[in-house]
Amino acid sequence: MPSLFVIGGARSGKSRYAQERAETTGLSPMFIATAQAYDDEMRERIARHQADRGPEWQTVEAPLDLAQTIKAHGAPDRVVLVDCLTLWVSNLMLAERDIAAATGDLAEALGGAKGPVILVANEVGLGIVPDNALARRFRDAAGIVNQKVAALADEVQFLAAGLPLTLKQNR
Amino acid sequence: MPSLFVIGGARSGKSRYAQERAETTGLSPMFIATAQAYDDEMRERIARHQADRGPEWQTVEAPLDLAQTIKAHGAPDRVVLVDCLTLWVSNLMLAERDIAAATGDLAEALGGAKGPVILVANEVGLGIVPDNALARRFRDAAGIVNQKVAALADEVQFLAAGLPLTLKQNR
Amino acid sequence: MPSLFVIGGARSGKSRYAQERAETTGLSPMFIATAQAYDDEMRERIARHQADRGPEWQTVEAPLDLAQTIKAHGAPDRVVLVDCLTLWVSNLMLAERDIAAATGDLAEALGGAKGPVILVANEVGLGIVPDNALARRFRDAAGIVNQKVAALADEVQFLAAGLPLTLKQNR
Repeated sequence: MPSLFVIGGARSGKSRYAQERAETTGLSPMFIATAQAYDDEMRERIARHQADRGPEWQTVEAPLDLAQTIKAHGAPDRVVLVDCLTLWVSNLMLAERDIAAATGDLAEALGGAKGPVILVANEVGLGIVPDNALARRFRDAAGIVNQKVAALADEVQFLAAGLPLTLKQNR
Repeated sequence: MPSLFVIGGARSGKSRYAQERAETTGLSPMFIATAQAYDDEMRERIARHQADRGPEWQTVEAPLDLAQTIKAHGAPDRVVLVDCLTLWVSNLMLAERDIAAATGDLAEALGGAKGPVILVANEVGLGIVPDNALARRFRDAAGIVNQKVAALADEVQFLAAGLPLTLKQNR
Repeated sequence: MPSLFVIGGARSGKSRYAQERAETTGLSPMFIATAQAYDDEMRERIARHQADRGPEWQTVEAPLDLAQTIKAHGAPDRVVLVDCLTLWVSNLMLAERDIAAATGDLAEALGGAKGPVILVANEVGLGIVPDNALARRFRDAAGIVNQKVAALADEVQFLAAGLPLTLKQNR
Protein backbone atom coordinates (compact mmCIF):
# COMPACT_ATOMS: atom_id res chain seq x y z
CA MET A 1 0.00 0.00 0.00
CA PRO A 2 1.24 3.54 -0.69
CA SER A 3 3.13 5.24 2.08
CA LEU A 4 3.95 8.90 2.64
CA PHE A 5 6.81 10.14 4.81
CA VAL A 6 6.70 13.75 6.04
CA ILE A 7 9.84 15.28 7.58
CA GLY A 8 10.54 18.77 8.79
CA GLY A 9 11.69 20.86 11.69
CA ALA A 10 9.86 21.82 14.85
CA ARG A 11 6.80 23.93 14.02
CA SER A 12 7.24 23.38 10.30
CA GLY A 13 3.60 22.39 9.87
CA LYS A 14 4.44 18.73 9.26
CA SER A 15 1.72 17.29 11.54
CA ARG A 16 -0.98 19.46 10.01
CA TYR A 17 0.15 18.62 6.48
CA ALA A 18 0.17 14.89 7.29
CA GLN A 19 -3.34 15.13 8.80
CA GLU A 20 -4.67 16.93 5.74
CA ARG A 21 -3.14 14.32 3.47
CA ALA A 22 -4.75 11.59 5.59
CA GLU A 23 -8.13 13.29 5.44
CA THR A 24 -8.03 13.70 1.66
CA THR A 25 -7.78 9.90 1.24
CA GLY A 26 -11.44 9.69 2.25
CA LEU A 27 -10.57 6.67 4.40
CA SER A 28 -11.20 6.36 8.12
CA PRO A 29 -8.23 8.05 9.85
CA MET A 30 -6.34 6.55 12.77
CA PHE A 31 -3.70 8.46 14.70
CA ILE A 32 -0.84 6.44 16.22
CA ALA A 33 0.71 8.68 18.85
CA THR A 34 4.28 7.94 19.95
CA ALA A 35 4.23 10.74 22.53
CA GLN A 36 4.21 9.98 26.22
CA ALA A 37 2.86 12.57 28.62
CA TYR A 38 5.79 12.54 31.02
CA ASP A 39 5.55 16.23 31.95
CA ASP A 40 3.16 19.18 31.81
CA GLU A 41 4.70 20.71 28.69
CA MET A 42 4.24 17.44 26.79
CA ARG A 43 0.73 16.89 28.19
CA GLU A 44 -0.22 20.33 26.89
CA ARG A 45 1.19 19.63 23.41
CA ILE A 46 -0.65 16.30 23.21
CA ALA A 47 -3.95 17.86 24.25
CA ARG A 48 -3.51 20.68 21.72
CA HIS A 49 -2.79 18.21 18.93
CA GLN A 50 -5.81 16.07 19.81
CA ALA A 51 -8.05 19.14 19.79
CA ASP A 52 -6.71 20.04 16.32
CA ARG A 53 -7.85 16.72 14.91
CA GLY A 54 -11.54 16.23 14.19
CA PRO A 55 -13.90 13.71 15.88
CA GLU A 56 -13.56 11.30 12.92
CA TRP A 57 -10.05 10.47 14.14
CA GLN A 58 -9.38 7.42 16.28
CA THR A 59 -6.26 7.56 18.44
CA VAL A 60 -4.03 4.78 19.76
CA GLU A 61 -0.77 5.16 21.65
CA ALA A 62 2.42 3.36 20.67
CA PRO A 63 5.42 4.84 22.45
CA LEU A 64 7.49 1.70 21.80
CA ASP A 65 5.69 -1.11 19.96
CA LEU A 66 5.11 0.75 16.75
CA ALA A 67 5.51 -2.09 14.22
CA GLN A 68 3.02 -4.23 16.15
CA THR A 69 0.51 -1.36 16.32
CA ILE A 70 0.73 -0.67 12.59
CA LYS A 71 0.23 -4.37 11.89
CA ALA A 72 -2.75 -4.57 14.24
CA HIS A 73 -4.57 -1.52 12.87
CA GLY A 74 -3.72 -1.35 9.16
CA ALA A 75 -6.77 -2.01 6.99
CA PRO A 76 -7.80 -1.32 3.39
CA ASP A 77 -10.49 1.14 4.50
CA ARG A 78 -8.29 2.97 7.00
CA VAL A 79 -5.40 5.41 6.76
CA VAL A 80 -2.90 5.19 9.60
CA LEU A 81 -0.88 8.27 10.63
CA VAL A 82 2.20 7.78 12.83
CA ASP A 83 3.31 10.99 14.60
CA CYS A 84 6.17 10.96 15.16
CA LEU A 85 9.10 8.62 14.51
CA THR A 86 11.61 10.90 16.22
CA LEU A 87 9.84 10.69 19.57
CA TRP A 88 9.64 6.93 19.05
CA VAL A 89 13.44 6.80 18.59
CA SER A 90 13.80 8.85 21.76
CA ASN A 91 11.47 6.48 23.64
CA LEU A 92 13.43 3.45 22.39
CA MET A 93 16.69 4.99 23.58
CA LEU A 94 15.30 5.82 27.02
CA ALA A 95 13.91 2.28 27.32
CA GLU A 96 17.27 0.86 26.13
CA ARG A 97 15.65 -1.06 23.29
CA ASP A 98 17.56 -2.21 20.21
CA ILE A 99 16.82 0.57 17.73
CA ALA A 100 18.20 -1.28 14.69
CA ALA A 101 15.96 -4.28 15.41
CA ALA A 102 12.93 -2.06 16.03
CA THR A 103 13.61 -0.23 12.75
CA GLY A 104 13.76 -3.58 10.96
CA ASP A 105 10.38 -4.51 12.46
CA LEU A 106 8.97 -1.15 11.38
CA ALA A 107 10.24 -1.67 7.82
CA GLU A 108 8.58 -5.08 7.76
CA ALA A 109 5.30 -3.65 9.09
CA LEU A 110 5.36 -0.93 6.42
CA GLY A 111 6.06 -3.46 3.68
CA GLY A 112 3.13 -5.63 4.79
CA ALA A 113 0.67 -2.86 5.67
CA LYS A 114 -2.92 -3.60 4.63
CA GLY A 115 -3.71 0.08 4.05
CA PRO A 116 -1.99 3.40 3.44
CA VAL A 117 0.45 4.62 6.11
CA ILE A 118 1.62 8.19 6.68
CA LEU A 119 4.65 8.74 8.92
CA VAL A 120 5.92 12.00 10.41
CA ALA A 121 9.46 12.64 11.64
CA ASN A 122 11.64 15.52 12.73
CA GLU A 123 14.80 16.42 10.89
CA VAL A 124 17.19 17.18 13.79
CA GLY A 125 20.62 17.15 12.13
CA LEU A 126 20.84 20.65 10.68
CA GLY A 127 22.11 22.54 13.71
CA ILE A 128 25.46 22.73 15.46
CA VAL A 129 26.86 19.41 16.76
CA PRO A 130 25.32 18.91 20.24
CA ASP A 131 27.63 19.18 23.26
CA ASN A 132 26.70 15.91 24.87
CA ALA A 133 27.27 12.39 23.57
CA LEU A 134 23.69 11.22 24.26
CA ALA A 135 22.25 13.96 22.05
CA ARG A 136 24.73 13.03 19.31
CA ARG A 137 23.71 9.35 19.59
CA PHE A 138 20.06 10.35 19.39
CA ARG A 139 20.73 12.58 16.39
CA ASP A 140 22.49 9.73 14.61
CA ALA A 141 19.74 7.23 15.43
CA ALA A 142 16.96 9.58 14.31
CA GLY A 143 18.79 10.31 11.06
CA ILE A 144 19.33 6.63 10.28
CA VAL A 145 15.65 5.84 10.89
CA ASN A 146 14.67 8.75 8.62
CA GLN A 147 16.91 7.42 5.83
CA LYS A 148 15.47 3.91 6.10
CA VAL A 149 11.85 5.05 6.09
CA ALA A 150 12.49 7.50 3.23
CA ALA A 151 14.02 4.67 1.18
CA LEU A 152 10.85 2.57 1.70
CA ALA A 153 8.25 5.29 1.27
CA ASP A 154 6.50 5.94 -2.04
CA GLU A 155 6.45 9.66 -1.38
CA VAL A 156 8.60 11.91 0.83
CA GLN A 157 7.84 15.55 1.58
CA PHE A 158 10.11 18.04 3.38
CA LEU A 159 8.11 20.71 5.21
CA ALA A 160 9.34 24.24 5.90
CA ALA A 161 7.16 27.14 7.03
CA GLY A 162 4.09 24.96 6.43
CA LEU A 163 4.98 24.34 2.78
CA PRO A 164 5.92 20.96 1.25
CA LEU A 165 8.91 20.30 -0.97
CA THR A 166 8.90 16.96 -2.77
CA LEU A 167 11.97 14.84 -2.01
CA LYS A 168 10.60 11.68 -3.63
CA GLN A 169 7.54 10.70 -5.63
CA ASN A 170 7.17 7.21 -7.03
CA ARG A 171 4.71 6.80 -9.87
CA MET B 1 0.88 43.98 -3.65
CA PRO B 2 3.19 41.00 -4.21
CA SER B 3 5.16 39.78 -1.26
CA LEU B 4 8.22 37.56 -1.06
CA PHE B 5 9.23 35.57 2.01
CA VAL B 6 12.83 34.37 2.27
CA ILE B 7 13.73 31.77 4.92
CA GLY B 8 16.97 29.98 5.63
CA GLY B 9 19.57 29.18 8.22
CA ALA B 10 22.30 31.37 9.67
CA ARG B 11 24.75 32.39 6.94
CA SER B 12 22.60 30.86 4.22
CA GLY B 13 22.79 34.02 2.11
CA LYS B 14 19.14 34.93 2.75
CA SER B 15 19.76 38.64 3.45
CA ARG B 16 21.87 39.07 0.32
CA TYR B 17 19.32 37.22 -1.80
CA ALA B 18 16.49 39.37 -0.41
CA GLN B 19 18.46 42.56 -1.11
CA GLU B 20 19.18 41.51 -4.68
CA ARG B 21 15.52 40.72 -5.23
CA ALA B 22 14.60 44.15 -3.80
CA GLU B 23 17.10 45.88 -6.08
CA THR B 24 15.85 44.12 -9.21
CA THR B 25 12.38 45.64 -8.70
CA GLY B 26 13.83 48.99 -9.76
CA LEU B 27 11.88 50.63 -6.95
CA SER B 28 13.33 52.75 -4.18
CA PRO B 29 14.51 50.26 -1.50
CA MET B 30 13.81 50.68 2.22
CA PHE B 31 15.36 48.44 4.85
CA ILE B 32 13.32 47.81 8.01
CA ALA B 33 15.80 46.52 10.58
CA THR B 34 14.45 44.56 13.54
CA ALA B 35 17.91 44.21 15.09
CA GLN B 36 18.80 46.04 18.26
CA ALA B 37 22.44 46.75 19.01
CA TYR B 38 22.45 45.45 22.58
CA ASP B 39 26.05 44.17 22.52
CA ASP B 40 29.28 44.51 20.54
CA GLU B 41 28.78 41.35 18.52
CA MET B 42 25.39 42.55 17.34
CA ARG B 43 26.65 46.11 16.72
CA GLU B 44 29.33 44.65 14.47
CA ARG B 45 26.85 42.55 12.51
CA ILE B 46 24.54 45.53 11.99
CA ALA B 47 27.39 47.73 10.77
CA ARG B 48 28.60 45.02 8.39
CA HIS B 49 25.11 44.56 6.95
CA GLN B 50 24.65 48.32 6.47
CA ALA B 51 27.98 48.54 4.65
CA ASP B 52 26.87 45.71 2.34
CA ARG B 53 23.84 47.67 1.21
CA GLY B 54 24.34 50.51 -1.27
CA PRO B 55 23.69 54.24 -0.65
CA GLU B 56 20.31 54.01 -2.42
CA TRP B 57 18.94 52.16 0.60
CA GLN B 58 17.00 53.99 3.30
CA THR B 59 16.99 52.34 6.73
CA VAL B 60 14.43 52.48 9.53
CA GLU B 61 14.45 50.50 12.76
CA ALA B 62 11.47 48.53 14.03
CA PRO B 63 12.48 46.17 16.81
CA LEU B 64 8.86 45.85 17.99
CA ASP B 65 6.31 47.91 16.05
CA LEU B 66 6.75 46.19 12.73
CA ALA B 67 3.18 46.30 11.41
CA GLN B 68 2.95 50.03 12.06
CA THR B 69 6.30 50.64 10.32
CA ILE B 70 5.27 48.66 7.23
CA LYS B 71 2.00 50.60 7.11
CA ALA B 72 3.79 53.94 7.48
CA HIS B 73 6.42 53.31 4.80
CA GLY B 74 4.76 51.11 2.16
CA ALA B 75 4.30 52.98 -1.13
CA PRO B 76 3.75 52.01 -4.79
CA ASP B 77 7.18 53.33 -5.80
CA ARG B 78 9.03 51.70 -2.89
CA VAL B 79 10.06 48.15 -2.02
CA VAL B 80 10.21 47.43 1.71
CA LEU B 81 12.57 44.75 3.04
CA VAL B 82 12.05 43.46 6.60
CA ASP B 83 15.14 41.70 8.03
CA CYS B 84 14.39 39.69 10.02
CA LEU B 85 11.19 38.34 11.51
CA THR B 86 13.01 35.93 13.83
CA LEU B 87 14.79 38.71 15.68
CA TRP B 88 11.46 40.51 15.85
CA VAL B 89 9.89 37.45 17.54
CA SER B 90 12.82 37.40 19.95
CA ASN B 91 12.36 41.11 20.69
CA LEU B 92 8.64 40.60 21.29
CA MET B 93 9.35 37.76 23.74
CA LEU B 94 11.93 39.77 25.66
CA ALA B 95 9.50 42.72 25.84
CA GLU B 96 6.72 40.35 26.94
CA ARG B 97 4.45 41.44 24.11
CA ASP B 98 1.55 39.32 22.81
CA ILE B 99 3.14 37.55 19.84
CA ALA B 100 -0.14 36.22 18.43
CA ALA B 101 -1.65 39.71 18.42
CA ALA B 102 1.50 41.20 16.86
CA THR B 103 1.47 38.50 14.18
CA GLY B 104 -2.17 39.32 13.43
CA ASP B 105 -1.24 43.00 13.05
CA LEU B 106 1.65 42.02 10.76
CA ALA B 107 -0.67 39.91 8.60
CA GLU B 108 -3.05 42.85 8.32
CA ALA B 109 -0.21 45.21 7.38
CA LEU B 110 0.98 42.80 4.69
CA GLY B 111 -2.54 42.42 3.29
CA GLY B 112 -2.95 46.20 3.07
CA ALA B 113 0.58 47.09 1.92
CA LYS B 114 0.71 49.83 -0.72
CA GLY B 115 3.88 48.42 -2.31
CA PRO B 116 5.86 45.19 -2.52
CA VAL B 117 7.17 43.75 0.73
CA ILE B 118 10.05 41.31 1.15
CA LEU B 119 10.45 39.55 4.50
CA VAL B 120 13.41 37.55 5.78
CA ALA B 121 13.31 34.96 8.58
CA ASN B 122 15.47 32.27 10.08
CA GLU B 123 14.44 28.64 10.10
CA VAL B 124 15.49 27.54 13.60
CA GLY B 125 13.66 24.25 14.09
CA LEU B 126 15.95 21.78 12.35
CA GLY B 127 18.38 21.06 15.16
CA ILE B 128 18.16 19.04 18.35
CA VAL B 129 15.42 20.09 20.82
CA PRO B 130 16.94 22.90 22.94
CA ASP B 131 17.66 22.14 26.60
CA ASN B 132 15.85 25.11 28.05
CA ALA B 133 12.15 25.88 27.95
CA LEU B 134 12.61 29.50 26.85
CA ALA B 135 14.52 28.43 23.73
CA ARG B 136 11.77 25.88 22.99
CA ARG B 137 9.10 28.57 23.37
CA PHE B 138 11.08 30.86 21.06
CA ARG B 139 11.51 28.08 18.52
CA ASP B 140 7.77 27.41 18.55
CA ALA B 141 6.88 31.10 18.23
CA ALA B 142 9.34 31.67 15.37
CA GLY B 143 8.02 28.62 13.52
CA ILE B 144 4.39 29.70 13.90
CA VAL B 145 5.18 33.19 12.59
CA ASN B 146 7.03 31.64 9.62
CA GLN B 147 4.02 29.45 8.80
CA LYS B 148 1.62 32.42 8.93
CA VAL B 149 3.78 34.66 6.77
CA ALA B 150 4.47 31.84 4.28
CA ALA B 151 0.72 31.24 3.96
CA LEU B 152 0.19 34.93 3.09
CA ALA B 153 3.18 35.46 0.81
CA ASP B 154 2.94 35.20 -2.97
CA GLU B 155 6.39 33.66 -3.18
CA VAL B 156 8.48 31.75 -0.64
CA GLN B 157 12.15 30.85 -1.14
CA PHE B 158 14.24 28.57 1.08
CA LEU B 159 17.93 29.52 1.01
CA ALA B 160 20.82 27.09 1.56
CA ALA B 161 24.46 27.81 0.77
CA GLY B 162 23.38 31.01 -0.95
CA LEU B 163 21.05 29.21 -3.36
CA PRO B 164 17.24 29.54 -3.47
CA LEU B 165 14.77 26.67 -3.56
CA THR B 166 11.19 27.63 -4.40
CA LEU B 167 8.71 26.59 -1.71
CA LYS B 168 5.80 28.58 -3.17
CA GLN B 169 5.17 30.65 -6.27
CA ASN B 170 1.74 32.12 -6.95
CA ARG B 171 1.04 33.16 -10.53
CA MET C 1 36.43 20.21 -14.62
CA PRO C 2 32.90 19.65 -13.28
CA SER C 3 32.42 19.87 -9.56
CA LEU C 4 29.61 18.66 -7.32
CA PHE C 5 28.85 20.07 -3.86
CA VAL C 6 26.76 17.96 -1.49
CA ILE C 7 25.36 19.59 1.67
CA GLY C 8 23.08 18.21 4.33
CA GLY C 9 22.61 17.62 8.02
CA ALA C 10 24.16 14.99 10.23
CA ARG C 11 23.10 11.50 9.12
CA SER C 12 21.39 12.87 6.02
CA GLY C 13 23.13 10.33 3.78
CA LYS C 14 25.36 12.97 2.17
CA SER C 15 28.60 10.93 2.36
CA ARG C 16 26.98 7.85 0.84
CA TYR C 17 25.35 9.91 -1.92
CA ALA C 18 28.68 11.60 -2.70
CA GLN C 19 30.46 8.23 -2.83
CA GLU C 20 27.86 6.79 -5.18
CA ARG C 21 28.17 9.81 -7.44
CA ALA C 22 31.97 9.39 -7.43
CA GLU C 23 31.68 5.70 -8.28
CA THR C 24 29.29 6.31 -11.19
CA THR C 25 31.94 8.47 -12.92
CA GLY C 26 33.85 5.27 -13.66
CA LEU C 27 37.06 7.09 -12.72
CA SER C 28 39.51 5.99 -10.06
CA PRO C 29 38.13 7.35 -6.75
CA MET C 30 40.26 9.13 -4.16
CA PHE C 31 38.93 10.07 -0.72
CA ILE C 32 40.37 13.19 0.89
CA ALA C 33 39.53 12.91 4.58
CA THR C 34 39.53 16.08 6.67
CA ALA C 35 38.75 14.17 9.87
CA GLN C 36 41.32 13.82 12.60
CA ALA C 37 41.04 10.93 15.04
CA TYR C 38 41.40 12.96 18.23
CA ASP C 39 39.12 10.78 20.35
CA ASP C 40 37.52 7.33 20.40
CA GLU C 41 34.16 8.49 19.08
CA MET C 42 35.82 10.08 16.05
CA ARG C 43 38.15 7.09 15.53
CA GLU C 44 35.10 4.85 15.41
CA ARG C 45 33.33 7.04 12.87
CA ILE C 46 36.41 7.16 10.63
CA ALA C 47 36.84 3.38 10.72
CA ARG C 48 33.14 2.86 9.94
CA HIS C 49 33.32 5.22 6.97
CA GLN C 50 36.46 3.53 5.61
CA ALA C 51 34.81 0.12 5.86
CA ASP C 52 31.81 1.49 3.92
CA ARG C 53 34.00 2.42 0.98
CA GLY C 54 35.21 -0.34 -1.34
CA PRO C 55 38.84 -1.41 -1.90
CA GLU C 56 39.02 0.63 -5.13
CA TRP C 57 39.15 3.80 -3.02
CA GLN C 58 42.46 5.45 -2.17
CA THR C 59 42.46 7.62 0.94
CA VAL C 60 44.60 10.63 1.85
CA GLU C 61 44.24 12.85 4.90
CA ALA C 62 44.09 16.62 4.72
CA PRO C 63 42.90 18.10 7.99
CA LEU C 64 44.32 21.53 7.09
CA ASP C 65 46.10 21.75 3.72
CA LEU C 66 43.13 20.95 1.57
CA ALA C 67 43.84 23.15 -1.46
CA GLN C 68 47.36 21.75 -1.75
CA THR C 69 46.06 18.16 -1.51
CA ILE C 70 43.43 18.72 -4.22
CA LYS C 71 46.11 20.25 -6.46
CA ALA C 72 48.51 17.37 -5.82
CA HIS C 73 46.00 14.60 -6.50
CA GLY C 74 43.57 15.93 -9.14
CA ALA C 75 43.96 14.09 -12.44
CA PRO C 76 41.82 13.56 -15.55
CA ASP C 77 41.38 9.85 -14.79
CA ARG C 78 40.59 10.34 -11.12
CA VAL C 79 37.58 11.65 -9.15
CA VAL C 80 38.47 13.33 -5.89
CA LEU C 81 35.98 13.34 -3.00
CA VAL C 82 36.52 15.78 -0.11
CA ASP C 83 34.60 14.80 3.06
CA CYS C 84 33.97 17.14 4.70
CA LEU C 85 34.49 20.89 4.47
CA THR C 86 32.81 21.58 7.79
CA LEU C 87 35.34 19.53 9.74
CA TRP C 88 38.05 21.31 7.76
CA VAL C 89 36.66 24.69 8.89
CA SER C 90 36.64 23.39 12.46
CA ASN C 91 40.26 22.20 12.10
CA LEU C 92 41.31 25.60 10.69
CA MET C 93 39.66 27.39 13.64
CA LEU C 94 41.32 25.14 16.22
CA ALA C 95 44.69 25.65 14.49
CA GLU C 96 44.06 29.42 14.35
CA ARG C 97 44.57 29.53 10.59
CA ASP C 98 43.19 32.31 8.39
CA ILE C 99 39.93 30.80 7.14
CA ALA C 100 39.31 33.47 4.48
CA ALA C 101 42.76 32.90 2.98
CA ALA C 102 42.35 29.11 3.11
CA THR C 103 38.96 29.41 1.41
CA GLY C 104 40.54 31.55 -1.31
CA ASP C 105 43.17 28.85 -1.83
CA LEU C 106 40.45 26.20 -2.00
CA ALA C 107 38.53 28.21 -4.61
CA GLU C 108 41.70 28.50 -6.69
CA ALA C 109 42.38 24.76 -6.38
CA LEU C 110 38.82 23.97 -7.49
CA GLY C 111 39.09 26.34 -10.45
CA GLY C 112 42.32 24.70 -11.59
CA ALA C 113 41.46 21.07 -10.80
CA LYS C 114 42.66 18.60 -13.43
CA GLY C 115 39.76 16.20 -12.78
CA PRO C 116 36.27 16.17 -11.27
CA VAL C 117 35.95 17.13 -7.60
CA ILE C 118 33.10 16.27 -5.24
CA LEU C 119 32.86 18.14 -1.93
CA VAL C 120 30.71 17.32 1.08
CA ALA C 121 29.72 19.78 3.83
CA ASN C 122 27.33 20.00 6.75
CA GLU C 123 24.60 22.58 6.91
CA VAL C 124 24.78 23.69 10.56
CA GLY C 125 22.79 26.93 10.61
CA LEU C 126 19.21 25.68 10.87
CA GLY C 127 18.95 25.25 14.64
CA ILE C 128 18.64 27.66 17.52
CA VAL C 129 21.46 30.24 17.88
CA PRO C 130 24.21 28.51 19.90
CA ASP C 131 24.84 29.73 23.45
CA ASN C 132 28.57 30.25 23.12
CA ALA C 133 30.41 32.71 20.90
CA LEU C 134 32.88 30.14 19.54
CA ALA C 135 30.04 27.98 18.20
CA ARG C 136 28.49 31.08 16.61
CA ARG C 137 31.81 31.99 14.96
CA PHE C 138 32.14 28.42 13.70
CA ARG C 139 28.58 28.44 12.36
CA ASP C 140 29.27 31.69 10.52
CA ALA C 141 32.56 30.44 9.07
CA ALA C 142 31.06 27.13 7.93
CA GLY C 143 28.13 28.94 6.29
CA ILE C 144 30.39 31.37 4.44
CA VAL C 145 32.56 28.53 3.11
CA ASN C 146 29.40 26.70 1.97
CA GLN C 147 28.20 29.78 0.09
CA LYS C 148 31.56 30.24 -1.66
CA VAL C 149 31.85 26.61 -2.71
CA ALA C 150 28.22 26.50 -3.85
CA ALA C 151 28.81 29.58 -6.01
CA LEU C 152 31.75 27.83 -7.72
CA ALA C 153 30.26 24.35 -8.08
CA ASP C 154 28.57 23.19 -11.27
CA GLU C 155 26.03 21.18 -9.29
CA VAL C 156 24.77 21.50 -5.71
CA GLN C 157 22.60 18.90 -3.99
CA PHE C 158 20.88 19.26 -0.60
CA LEU C 159 20.44 15.90 1.14
CA ALA C 160 17.67 15.08 3.61
CA ALA C 161 16.75 11.57 4.78
CA GLY C 162 19.11 10.17 2.16
CA LEU C 163 17.35 11.92 -0.72
CA PRO C 164 18.84 14.67 -2.91
CA LEU C 165 17.18 17.97 -3.76
CA THR C 166 18.83 19.95 -6.56
CA LEU C 167 19.87 23.45 -5.49
CA LYS C 168 21.90 24.16 -8.63
CA GLN C 169 22.60 22.42 -11.92
CA ASN C 170 24.69 24.11 -14.59
CA ARG C 171 24.31 22.76 -18.12
